[in-house]
Amino acid sequence: MSTTAPRRGRRPGSPDTRAAILAVARERFAQQGYAATSVRGIATAAGVDSALVHHYFGTKEDLFVASLELRIDPRVIAPTITAGGREEAGERLVRLLLSVWDDEESRLPLMGLVRSVFEPESRALVPEAFGRLILGPVGDALELDEPERRMTLVASQLVGIVVLRYVAQIEPLASAPAETLVATYAPVVQGYLTGPLP
Amino acid sequence: MSTTAPRRGRRPGSPDTRAAILAVARERFAQQGYAATSVRGIATAAGVDSALVHHYFGTKEDLFVASLELRIDPRVIAPTITAGGREEAGERLVRLLLSVWDDEESRLPLMGLVRSVFEPESRALVPEAFGRLILGPVGDALELDEPERRMTLVASQLVGIVVLRYVAQIEPLASAPAETLVATYAPVVQGYLTGPLP
Repeated sequence: MSTTAPRRGRRPGSPDTRAAILAVARERFAQQGYAATSVRGIATAAGVDSALVHHYFGTKEDLFVASLELRIDPRVIAPTITAGGREEAGERLVRLLLSVWDDEESRLPLMGLVRSVFEPESRALVPEAFGRLILGPVGDALELDEPERRMTLVASQLVGIVVLRYVAQIEPLASAPAETLVATYAPVVQGYLTGPLP
Repeated sequence: MSTTAPRRGRRPGSPDTRAAILAVARERFAQQGYAATSVRGIATAAGVDSALVHHYFGTKEDLFVASLELRIDPRVIAPTITAGGREEAGERLVRLLLSVWDDEESRLPLMGLVRSVFEPESRALVPEAFGRLILGPVGDALELDEPERRMTLVASQLVGIVVLRYVAQIEPLASAPAETLVATYAPVVQGYLTGPLP
């Protein structure tokens, strides 16, 4: 990889440089949101050339995903959810949420993301990230009417599950078997996706 | 009120004493939970006599409610929700949640409470408080089967609404008319209360 690295950055490429870029990216995306943050601005603040940022991380969206530090690239989630068509999407969505959060290693970085919703400077980051990377593509692929409205309803149930089961750890929800929760919540999420809306 | 104040406390009763008791109570309830916190322990830590705590605040539960600093006593909520019987409870629950959170003055202290779910030392406070003061009495009054399970399902939807509409302020949920949301969410909450469970 180092043989193809551009050599015109202000600092030489190194693990430290990569970490510095990520740290700046996390801060900028959190404070300014995705749209208002530029790769050039991140590069300048990290003291490197934009080309080095692209070399390490690819596009702005790739950099954004890297800055979330998740174990799973959220962009692979949407196709998994929509693979079974409209009528299975509710169940697949709930099952995937539970499998990711039931995994201890992926839970920790996600917990940090959820907590950021309560910090004024990064309040919009998580909804923006999950809207852009997961819920938007799911809504498009399923060709939903009123996709934004439906996906916020879906999110309102999934976020509540996360807060009660994983953050506050309220019983009996915290230790309920995943399959019981899939059976409980899938019809509700499916209704938000494809049922009638008032 | 001062004419009936007991005079045997270590400190004289005063607005400062009252505030000091409340501050200690908030800290103890948050750190130890409701059950493990005693009025005597709070009194000792605040440097006053237990009788003075009871004089100012009444029972331990009264003190707990006072320490939440809400504009509405949550104990009056359960009868409001159950007044229309089982079949109206879902709708009443959603409507009441929205009316309390749509009110700017009551939103602020509630926001502090919700945020405390993400602080390790007070994670259990809010669920314990709302379980004890609202959801438990509602489940009892409606004579639900599996009341704890049903009330955590209800809570998982209501908490998600709070996080998306009021904390993260995601559109179109954040500015949707309350009545539209009542029509959307009431059937789901009603299902959790009285519908079949897997």
